[in-house]
Amino acid sequence: MTPTIRRAEERDLPTIVALLADDALGATRENAALPLDAAYTEAFAAIGRDPNQYLAVVEQEGALVGCLQLSFIPGLSHRGLTRGQIESVRIASRLRGSGLGRQMFEWAIAECRARGCGIVQLTTDKTRADAHRFYAALGFVASHDGMKLKF
Amino acid sequence: MTPTIRRAEERDLPTIVALLADDALGATRENAALPLDAAYTEAFAAIGRDPNQYLAVVEQEGALVGCLQLSFIPGLSHRGLTRGQIESVRIASRLRGSGLGRQMFEWAIAECRARGCGIVQLTTDKTRADAHRFYAALGFVASHDGMKLKF
Repeated sequence: MTPTIRRAEERDLPTIVALLADDALGATRENAALPLDAAYTEAFAAIGRDPNQYLAVVEQEGALVGCLQLSFIPGLSHRGLTRGQIESVRIASRLRGSGLGRQMFEWAIAECRARGCGIVQLTTDKTRADAHRFYAALGFVASHDGMKLKF
Repeated sequence: MTPTIRRAEERDLPTIVALLADDALGATRENAALPLDAAYTEAFAAIGRDPNQYLAVVEQEGALVGCLQLSFIPGLSHRGLTRGQIESVRIASRLRGSGLGRQMFEWAIAECRARGCGIVQLTTDKTRADAHRFYAALGFVASHDGMKLKF
């Protein structure tokens, strides 16, 4: 079963938000109730206006089963390196462990390479031990601390 | 002595690259030789084309003594939260420990707030113990691992 990975469209938004909420951490902070909180539609529009953002969804057997966001960040460090950053990764709970996550990441890494990135980076909550092992198996090195300041 | 913080201009580029190189990690990966490597001027132009990037420099007594890059990243997670991300922070070595870093960060955090961000985030190399203490004193929490995959 080969998944299709494509750019998200507005009609996908309720399902994406439901995926974001279907997670131990996401359940505490998202609101997938319909009609959707306007904050999500506004954020979706802001992503669409920024050519350095790529919000991707994964379809399999006609269902939307995963999502992730790529950000392409130009920068001066490392001799003008462009960074590919991966955020908001989710896979439908019934498909976790199926290999779909690996396929999504292989796609994402290839997309970053095609956009000229020299590095792919992400941060993962230290309480997500499974995620840490998954990223390490893909070649990611936990060389940094990810520090957050919430308002 | 109040520093001036402003958007970087192309004439600042050689000094910014010299700042990036004047650091234990930066020295191994930057090239501040003149004429400047074209990769830096191309990256500077890419930053300038992206309205969600803000490359800032700090002037004090007529000298450029610091820099940092802010990236404003729209996203769906956390009910449509915009992230402010800080990258490529440097302060002239003679001014480290002078309080200038704290002033730069207070400016950066205020700028993120003004742009509607709900979180400010950065990653710091785990070998930079001093930086870790500096960010913790500003209120940053090392809740995540920063994972990198270099090509």
